[in-house]
Amino acid sequence: MIKVGIVGSTGYTGAELVRILLGHPEAEIGALCSETHSGRPFWEVYPALSGMLGEVCVPYETSRIARDCDVVFTALPHKKAMEYIPQILRGDCLVIDLSADFRLKDPVTYERWYGARHTASELLERAVYGLPELHRREIREAGLIANPGCYPTGAILAAAPLLREGLIHADTIVINSASGVTGAGRSLTIGSLFCEVNEGMRPYGVGRHRHTPEMEQEMGIILGEEVRVTFVPHLAPMSRGILTTLCCRAKDGVSDAMIRNAYESFYGGEPFVRVLPEGVFPNVRDVRGSNYCDIGLVLEQRTRRVVVMSAIDNLVKGASGQAVQNMNIAMGIEETAGLMGAPLFL
Amino acid sequence: MIKVGIVGSTGYTGAELVRILLGHPEAEIGALCSETHSGRPFWEVYPALSGMLGEVCVPYETSRIARDCDVVFTALPHKKAMEYIPQILRGDCLVIDLSADFRLKDPVTYERWYGARHTASELLERAVYGLPELHRREIREAGLIANPGCYPTGAILAAAPLLREGLIHADTIVINSASGVTGAGRSLTIGSLFCEVNEGMRPYGVGRHRHTPEMEQEMGIILGEEVRVTFVPHLAPMSRGILTTLCCRAKDGVSDAMIRNAYESFYGGEPFVRVLPEGVFPNVRDVRGSNYCDIGLVLEQRTRRVVVMSAIDNLVKGASGQAVQNMNIAMGIEETAGLMGAPLFL
Amino acid sequence: MIKVGIVGSTGYTGAELVRILLGHPEAEIGALCSETHSGRPFWEVYPALSGMLGEVCVPYETSRIARDCDVVFTALPHKKAMEYIPQILRGDCLVIDLSADFRLKDPVTYERWYGARHTASELLERAVYGLPELHRREIREAGLIANPGCYPTGAILAAAPLLREGLIHADTIVINSASGVTGAGRSLTIGSLFCEVNEGMRPYGVGRHRHTPEMEQEMGIILGEEVRVTFVPHLAPMSRGILTTLCCRAKDGVSDAMIRNAYESFYGGEPFVRVLPEGVFPNVRDVRGSNYCDIGLVLEQRTRRVVVMSAIDNLVKGASGQAVQNMNIAMGIEETAGLMGAPLFL
Amino acid sequence: MIKVGIVGSTGYTGAELVRILLGHPEAEIGALCSETHSGRPFWEVYPALSGMLGEVCVPYETSRIARDCDVVFTALPHKKAMEYIPQILRGDCLVIDLSADFRLKDPVTYERWYGARHTASELLERAVYGLPELHRREIREAGLIANPGCYPTGAILAAAPLLREGLIHADTIVINSASGVTGAGRSLTIGSLFCEVNEGMRPYGVGRHRHTPEMEQEMGIILGEEVRVTFVPHLAPMSRGILTTLCCRAKDGVSDAMIRNAYESFYGGEPFVRVLPEGVFPNVRDVRGSNYCDIGLVLEQRTRRVVVMSAIDNLVKGASGQAVQNMNIAMGIEETAGLMGAPLFL
Repeated sequence: MIKVGIVGSTGYTGAELVRILLGHPEAEIGALCSETHSGRPFWEVYPALSGMLGEVCVPYETSRIARDCDVVFTALPHKKAMEYIPQILRGDCLVIDLSADFRLKDPVTYERWYGARHTASELLERAVYGLPELHRREIREAGLIANPGCYPTGAILAAAPLLREGLIHADTIVINSASGVTGAGRSLTIGSLFCEVNEGMRPYGVGRHRHTPEMEQEMGIILGEEVRVTFVPHLAPMSRGILTTLCCRAKDGVSDAMIRNAYESFYGGEPFVRVLPEGVFPNVRDVRGSNYCDIGLVLEQRTRRVVVMSAIDNLVKGASGQAVQNMNIAMGIEETAGLMGAPLFL
Repeated sequence: MIKVGIVGSTGYTGAELVRILLGHPEAEIGALCSETHSGRPFWEVYPALSGMLGEVCVPYETSRIARDCDVVFTALPHKKAMEYIPQILRGDCLVIDLSADFRLKDPVTYERWYGARHTASELLERAVYGLPELHRREIREAGLIANPGCYPTGAILAAAPLLREGLIHADTIVINSASGVTGAGRSLTIGSLFCEVNEGMRPYGVGRHRHTPEMEQEMGIILGEEVRVTFVPHLAPMSRGILTTLCCRAKDGVSDAMIRNAYESFYGGEPFVRVLPEGVFPNVRDVRGSNYCDIGLVLEQRTRRVVVMSAIDNLVKGASGQAVQNMNIAMGIEETAGLMGAPLFL
Repeated sequence: MIKVGIVGSTGYTGAELVRILLGHPEAEIGALCSETHSGRPFWEVYPALSGMLGEVCVPYETSRIARDCDVVFTALPHKKAMEYIPQILRGDCLVIDLSADFRLKDPVTYERWYGARHTASELLERAVYGLPELHRREIREAGLIANPGCYPTGAILAAAPLLREGLIHADTIVINSASGVTGAGRSLTIGSLFCEVNEGMRPYGVGRHRHTPEMEQEMGIILGEEVRVTFVPHLAPMSRGILTTLCCRAKDGVSDAMIRNAYESFYGGEPFVRVLPEGVFPNVRDVRGSNYCDIGLVLEQRTRRVVVMSAIDNLVKGASGQAVQNMNIAMGIEETAGLMGAPLFL
Repeated sequence: MIKVGIVGSTGYTGAELVRILLGHPEAEIGALCSETHSGRPFWEVYPALSGMLGEVCVPYETSRIARDCDVVFTALPHKKAMEYIPQILRGDCLVIDLSADFRLKDPVTYERWYGARHTASELLERAVYGLPELHRREIREAGLIANPGCYPTGAILAAAPLLREGLIHADTIVINSASGVTGAGRSLTIGSLFCEVNEGMRPYGVGRHRHTPEMEQEMGIILGEEVRVTFVPHLAPMSRGILTTLCCRAKDGVSDAMIRNAYESFYGGEPFVRVLPEGVFPNVRDVRGSNYCDIGLVLEQRTRRVVVMSAIDNLVKGASGQAVQNMNIAMGIEETAGLMGAPLFL
C-alpha cells in the first residue's frame, strides 16, 4: 500500500483527496495535517466521513511526514506551498502540489501575476506540470508534480488538439469559464455566502485571473510559440464543476472532420477524456464527482469559428482526482486506480 | 387607465406581465387569454397572486380583445404570434409582441433561422424593434412593437456604444451568455426538470440559436454594415437572469477612457442602464426582478480585447418589463411607470 | 414624509428595510447607520441599489438620529439593541426593534434563553409585541415596538385561531420549520457558505432555539394559560422563506368546518394573511418578496390531528416588511403602504 | 458474477441502480429494459455514463430476463410492478421490487391507499419487506423482496429503537420529512420543473401520502400493536436526500441515556446506520450518494418529547442502494459490496 500524507487536509481540495483515497485500492492515508483543526478527528471536521476513517489531524511536521509517507499532497495556498515543499522534498517522498507555486516555469511570470517573489525557484526546473494528457512521460519520473489549476485543466484540454494540429489562429482564443463555488475554497468571505451566490451569476478577476499565464504557458508549449489568450472566469450558483467555452478562428480549409479527427486521435487512448458525438454538448453535472473531462465541438461555418466546450469537476479532474491520477502514474500503478467511480449525475 | 389584454397569459412571460402590471399606476388588466387554463381564475394557476386579482382566463377571442383593450401583449410561441396578430391589429389597439415573429426585418432570414415561411410579412415594415435605448423615437409612433429577445437585449446593449463609436473590429465579436431556466418557459421538457438543471451548467444550440440573427441585425444597423457574431448560450442553474460576456478586439489607439466615455455618453440619460464603475462587474442577482441592465467594462491591454459584461433579468428587461417600458413610451406616459421597484437582490 | 433612520442598515434585514422603503410612498430614508461600512455609500455595499439612493453610511450617533428621524428601526444583534435603544428613545421618535431584546415580557425568561441579564428591563412593559394580527390596537399607541422573530411570526399566525377558539389540546403542539439562509444574516460562518448549505437540509438548535419562548409567550396570551411547544428549526437550501408545519391534536367533536371557520373569521379582514382553499398548501416561493403569510389547513381524521402550514418570507413578513407594517400602523397611515408589491414567485 | 436485469431502467431509480452496479465487484448488468428508450444505448439517455457501459435498452421481455438474469430489479410505477412480477418470478431469479406493490401485507390497506385492487395478492405473503436492519434474516431466504419506500426507510429507522424498547407513547408520533426532487422521478409534471421548485418549500399530500401505511405497518410490527402516525412530507429545493424529523412523547422515567443506549445497541453492528454524537444533527449532504442513514437524538426535558432526526439519500438508502444491499444479503455475498463509496458531501 502507498502511504499518503496530506498537508492542508481540511480545506475543500484536501477533503476531496481524502474522499477519493478512501476508495483507492492501493493507497492508504498516513497523515492528515491541518493547522486549523489540529487535534480533532478528521470526521469531526467533515461528519460525512464518520465511521470511515479514524485519523486525527496533526500539525505540519514536514520532516516526519516526509519520512513516514510515500506520497505527500500539499493542498495549501500559494506562497505557503513553496515554504513547506523544500523541507518535504528532503525526504524520499513524491510531492504533488495542488497550489500554483510550481506550475509556472518562469519565476518572473510568477512574480508578475502572484505579486510575490518565488522563494524556491531552484525547484521549478524539477517540477513537472501534472497534466497527464500532455506530460505523462515526465510525470512517471517526477519527484515534484505541480498539479494544474482547475480552469487551466479544462481550458488546455479543450485547446490542445487544435494547437497540436495547427488548425486555428492562436491569437484569436477567447476562453469563458463558469465555475462552482468550491473553487473558492472553504475560507470565509462574503462572496462565498449562500445568499450572495444563490441565484447569481457574475464574472470576476477579468483580465487578471492568475490561471491565465498557466494556460498560456502550456498552450505555448504545444504550439511551439507564444500564445496570448483572453480568459473570463465566472462564478455560477453550484457547488462543483467548471464549464469552459473556448472560441477561436479556424484556419482556411479546416473542416469539421479535421477538427473531430484531431480530438479523437489526441484523446483516443485517454481514460478520462470523453469526446462527445456531434451535436452533444458537455454538462458539468455529467462529470460530477468523477475524473472525466467531457469535450464538445462545433465549427460555425458562418463565422469560421471553432467552439470547444469542456466540462470537468473542479475538485476532481480540476484538483484532487488529477492529483491522484498523477500519483498513480508516478508510483507505477494502474493510472485509473481509485478514479473509476461513475459520476453522481443526479 | 390604460386597459391591457394579454394573449398567452399563463406562460412565464405572461405571468410576469401580470406581476408587473399589478403594480402599474396607470394600467389595468382588461383580459387574460389562455388556451390551457381557459375558465380558471388566474390566481389558481399562479397562487402567489391570490387575493391580488380576480380575472378568469378566457380563450383567444382576438376581435373582442382588440375592441376592449388599448394595448394587447402577445406572449405566444413564434409562428402562433404571426397567426393572431393581424386579427388583433384590425382593432385600434397597440400590439406588443413578445415572440420572435416581428423582430427580423428580412423574411428570408426569418425563414432560414425559424424554418418556417413568414405568413404576415406585410407587417414587418410597420413593426418597430422595441429596444428603447436604440429606437425610442420609432416606438413612440408604433402600432406594432416587436419586443426584443432576452439574449439580444443583453448583447445589443453591451455592444452598442462600441459599434456606434467605431472602437472595435466588429468581425471579432464573440458573445457568451448564461441564462436562468425561466428562459425556457413553462413547457414540459426533460431538460427543464429541477434534477436535470440543478448543479448543472451546459451550452446549447451552439452555432444555431435563433437569437443570433436578431443580434446581427441590430448591431449591423448601429455599425452601418453587416455584422457576424459567434453566440454561445448556456443554461445556468438559476431561475432568472442572463449574464452576457462579449469579447472583441479594440482598434489601435483605443483607450480605457474612450471606451468608458462611449458607454457613459450613450447611456447617460437612460433610466434602466447602469454603467458600473471600473473594477465592478455585473451580477444577475443585482438586477433580479427589476428592469435594469447593468454593464461592466474591461480593456485587457495584453490582448487588446474589450470585455463587456451585461446582466439583465430575462423576464423583466429581457421580456415583460421591457414590454411595459415600450407600452409606456408608445402610450405617452412616464417611461418608468410601474418599473422602478428595487431589485430583489437577496 | 416620514423620516426614517436605520441602525444596523447593512445587515440583511437592514438592507431589506432599505429595499422596501425605496418603494414606500410616505416614507423617506433619513439616516443609514452602519459600523462596518461607515463612510461608504450604501449602494457600494449593495450594488443592486446603485442609482436608487445616494446615502452614505454613518456611524451610530443615536442622539442625532433620534432628533432627525420620526422612526428609527434598530436591526442589531440582541444585547446590542438594548444597549442603544434607551438612548434613541430619549428623542421623540418611534423605535421599531428587529432584535429579540424587547419581545419577551419576562426578563427572567430572557436571561434563561439568551444567557445574558436584561439591561433595559424597565422598558419591557412599554414595548409592544409587533404582530399586528394580534396587537394592532397597542401598536397604534406604541413608542417602542418589538418586531417579532421570523419563526414566531409563522408559527403564531398558524396557531392563533386554534388557540383563540379552543379547538385543540395545547400541550400537543409540535412545530417544524424550514428556513432560508438569509435568516442567518450576513455574518461569516462556515455553516452559511454556499457549499455547506447547497444540496443540504438539516435541523439545528433542537430543543434550545431562542424563538421558542417567544412562541410560547404569545400562544399563552391567546389561550389564557401557559403553553409549552416543541419547536424544531431546519435550514433549507434557499435564500428566503420559512415554511412552518404545526401539528396538534384536535379536541373531540372539532370538525373540518369549525377549523376553517376559525381561520376565516380570525383573518377575514387581514390584508396580509391568505387562508388557502381546501387541498391547497402554502409554498414559500408564493410569498417571496411580499408581506403575505399563506396558511393551509388539514384535519387528519385518522389521528385527529390538525396540521397547519404557513409560509412567509422571513425577510419581509418575518422581519422588515412587518416592521414597516408596524410603522404604518403606529404612524397612522395606510397599513399596507409600500407593502402591496406582488410576490416574485418565479 | 451475479447477472442483473433492471426493468424500468431509465427512470431515476433505475439509473441510480446502474450507477451503483457499475462499481459493484460481484455483479454485472445483464439487461436494461426500458419502454420509453428501447433501442437506444443507455449512455445516450444518461450521457454521464458514456464510455462506462455499452448496453442498449431493450423492451420488457420478462421471460427472457428471468431466464438470463440471477437478479431482477423492477423499478416500475405501482400497479405496473404487480403486472410484470408474477411472470418474472416464474424464472428462477430473485426479484427485488422498488415499487410499492408488495410492501403492504394487507391487500385491503393497499386498495384503500392506492385506489386499486391488488392483482397479485397471492404473492404478498412470500414478499419480504426489505429493510435489512429489521428483516435481515428473512431477506436471506427471500425470492421476492419489497424494497421499502424512501420516506418509510428514514422514518422507520428513526423510530425503531424507541418502539422496540418501549420508551415512548406510540400514539404521539408526528413525522415531518423534507425530500429532494428526485423522489418525484423523471416524469414530466409542472411541479417538478426547475423554476417551480427552486427557492420553494412546500408540504404536499398531507394526511394522504401513501407511505403512511407502510410506516404504520412496520412500526406496528416492532411495537407489537397498531400504530397510527401523522406524516407530513415536504418538497425541498434540492435533488437528493430526505431529512426526517420525528417527534413523540417519552414515557415517564425515560432518560437521555436510555434513549441513546437504545439506538446504540439497536444499530451497533449495522454498517449503514450512524448514530451521531450528542449535539450533532444529521444533514442530507453528509449522506449524499451513499447508503448511510445518519441519526441524531434529542430529549427535550421541558416537554418530555423525543426528537429523532434521520438523513438518507432517497435514491440510495431510500431506493437503489438499499435494493443492492438486499441483493447482497439474499445472494449470500458481503452485505456492503459496492456500497462503501464515501458520500459526495461537497
